Amino acid sequence: MIVRNGERQPVLVVGSIGLDTIETPFGVERDVLGGAASYASTSASFFTKVRLVGVVGYDFPEEHMQFFRQHGIDLDGVQKVPGKTFRWNGYYEYDMNQAHTLATHLNVFEHFQPTIPAAYCESAFVFLANIDPELQLRVLDQVPARSFSLADTMNFWITSKREKVLEVVRRVDAITINDAEARQLCDTASLVVAGRQLLAMGPRVVIIKKGEHGAVMFTESDYFVAPSFPLEDVLDPTGAGDTFAGGVIGYLAASNDLSEANLRKAVLYGSVMASYSVEEFSLKRMARLEQGEIIMRYAEMRKITAVTE
Amino acid sequence: MIVRNGERQPVLVVGSIGLDTIETPFGVERDVLGGAASYASTSASFFTKVRLVGVVGYDFPEEHMQFFRQHGIDLDGVQKVPGKTFRWNGYYEYDMNQAHTLATHLNVFEHFQPTIPAAYCESAFVFLANIDPELQLRVLDQVPARSFSLADTMNFWITSKREKVLEVVRRVDAITINDAEARQLCDTASLVVAGRQLLAMGPRVVIIKKGEHGAVMFTESDYFVAPSFPLEDVLDPTGAGDTFAGGVIGYLAASNDLSEANLRKAVLYGSVMASYSVEEFSLKRMARLEQGEIIMRYAEMRKITAVTE
Repeated sequence: MIVRNGERQPVLVVGSIGLDTIETPFGVERDVLGGAASYASTSASFFTKVRLVGVVGYDFPEEHMQFFRQHGIDLDGVQKVPGKTFRWNGYYEYDMNQAHTLATHLNVFEHFQPTIPAAYCESAFVFLANIDPELQLRVLDQVPARSFSLADTMNFWITSKREKVLEVVRRVDAITINDAEARQLCDTASLVVAGRQLLAMGPRVVIIKKGEHGAVMFTESDYFVAPSFPLEDVLDPTGAGDTFAGGVIGYLAASNDLSEANLRKAVLYGSVMASYSVEEFSLKRMARLEQGEIIMRYAEMRKITAVTE
Repeated sequence: MIVRNGERQPVLVVGSIGLDTIETPFGVERDVLGGAASYASTSASFFTKVRLVGVVGYDFPEEHMQFFRQHGIDLDGVQKVPGKTFRWNGYYEYDMNQAHTLATHLNVFEHFQPTIPAAYCESAFVFLANIDPELQLRVLDQVPARSFSLADTMNFWITSKREKVLEVVRRVDAITINDAEARQLCDTASLVVAGRQLLAMGPRVVIIKKGEHGAVMFTESDYFVAPSFPLEDVLDPTGAGDTFAGGVIGYLAASNDLSEANLRKAVLYGSVMASYSVEEFSLKRMARLEQGEIIMRYAEMRKITAVTE
C-alpha cells in the first residue's frame, strides 16, 4: 500500500455514476463508464476503502459494478432503479482543455435523493463530487461525524444555483474547482484573488485545478503549486478533475493526517492519479493501474520542481 | 550581491529599446521606457555587468540613459541616431494575459544594423532579445567566443519569417518562448510535444513562458516546472517575459555555471524578477528594486513547491 502506517480511514464518495459518449481528436467511445463519482471513487480506492453513494438505471452493465467491487469499493449505497442510467455526451477539440457538452440526459438522476446508509453516516472523510449543490447540502446533513469534507462543483451549478454553491463552499472543509469556474464564481480574472476569496468564505483548503498547468492550493498560511505530469499524449481528459480529487481525499484518508505538509503530498498524489487517467479513454487506464506506478510517478513529480541549495 | 562566488561574466544584450504607451484596466501611461532589451538588461543588471546594444532616436530622454547607467549597464553599444525612437502602443484587457498591439512605429529601428563593439565581441553570455531574426543571426556571427546564447522571439516573426526563426533556434544554446508562440511554431496543442520538438532542433535548453502559470524548462535529461509568484495585483505585464529572460541569463552569467541544477535556479530567479516587474508600469518597480527583495522572494518561491519526505 502507498500509505503504510496511520489509521486508515474510509472515504465516502457521493455523486454521479454514468455512461459517457466521448469524442476526441483520437477517436470516439460510446456508452463507456463515466460520472464524477466513478472516477473519484476508483482513484481513491488505490489509497483506502471507498463507500460509494449514487444511482444507476436497470441498463447499467453489471461489468461496471464488478469493476468497482474489484477495486474494493463498497456499493451498498448505490441504488439500482427502474429507468436509464445518467448519460453524458461530449467532445474535445484539438487543444483538449475544454469539454464541450453535446447532450446530458439525467435519466434516473433526475429524482435522485442521496440516502446515506446508516453504516456510512460515521464516515470521517467525505467527497461530494459534482452534483446539484442542494443534494450536496443534504449529504452534509447526514454525515455529522465527518472530520474532512471536500466538495467539487461545475460551471452549470455556478450559473443556475449560485447561492447554493456558495452555501456548500461555506460548509465544507475543502473545495476543488477548476480555474475558469473559480474566476466565474469570484468574478475576478486573478486566480490568486479567487483562491483567497474562496478561503475567506469558510473552507480551510481551496484547490484550483488548472489542467495542463497543474493545481494550486490555498490554505490560511500556505500557498502550494503542484505541476502536472508532462504527458505528450492526452487521449481523453474526461474525469481528470474527479480523479485528481479522489486521489487527494484518498491519500488524506489513508494517512489520516490533515497537516499542511500532508495536504501538499495529497495534491501531488491527486496529480499523479489524474495524469494516468487521461492516458486512455474512460477508466481504462485506471483499470490496469498498479500501486508501483503511482509510487514511481509520485517520485518523478517531486523531482520536477526540486531545486537544490 | 546575489551570487557571491564564481567567475562573474558580463552579459551582452541586443534588442529593442523603445517608448511605450500602455493601457491596462488600471490606467494609461504614455511614452514610458520600454523595449525588450531595456527590460532584459535592467533585470540582468541585478546579477552582473550588462553590455547593451540597440538604437534610439534623438528624442530618447537622457533620463533613461541615466537610468541604465545607474544600473551599471554599459551603453557603448547604444547608437543614438537622427529620427524618432521605436514606439509601441498596446493595451491589455481585464485578464491581462495577452497584449493587444494598437500601433508599432519602428522609426530608427527600421534600418538598424546591430554592430557589436569590438570590446563586446568576446562576450561569453549573449541574450538576443526579440528583434528581427535576421538581425539575431547577424549578432551571432559577431560573437564567436560565446559560451551561452539565449534567444527570445515573438508571434510576429514566427508568422512573417518562420524559416529565419527556426535558423535562430538551431544556432543558439537556449531559447525562451511563450506558450502560444511555442504551440504556433511547432503546430501542436501540447506544450510537452512543442518543448521536446524545439529541443530536438538544436538548443540544449528550451524555456516556455506561461505567464501566470509560471515557466517550464526542457533539457535533454530534465524537465523543470517553476511556479509564478502569487501576486494579487498585476498592474502592467509589459516586459515580463524579457525581465524573466534577463534574470535567467544574468544569474547564469554571474554564477558562470551551466549545470542542470544551476539552470533550475536561474529559471526561479527569472520568475522572481518578472514578478516584481509587473507590480508597476514600465520599469518603475525595477527602478527601486533592491537585492534583498530578490533574495527574499527567491526563498519564498522555493517554498511554494516544496514537498517534505
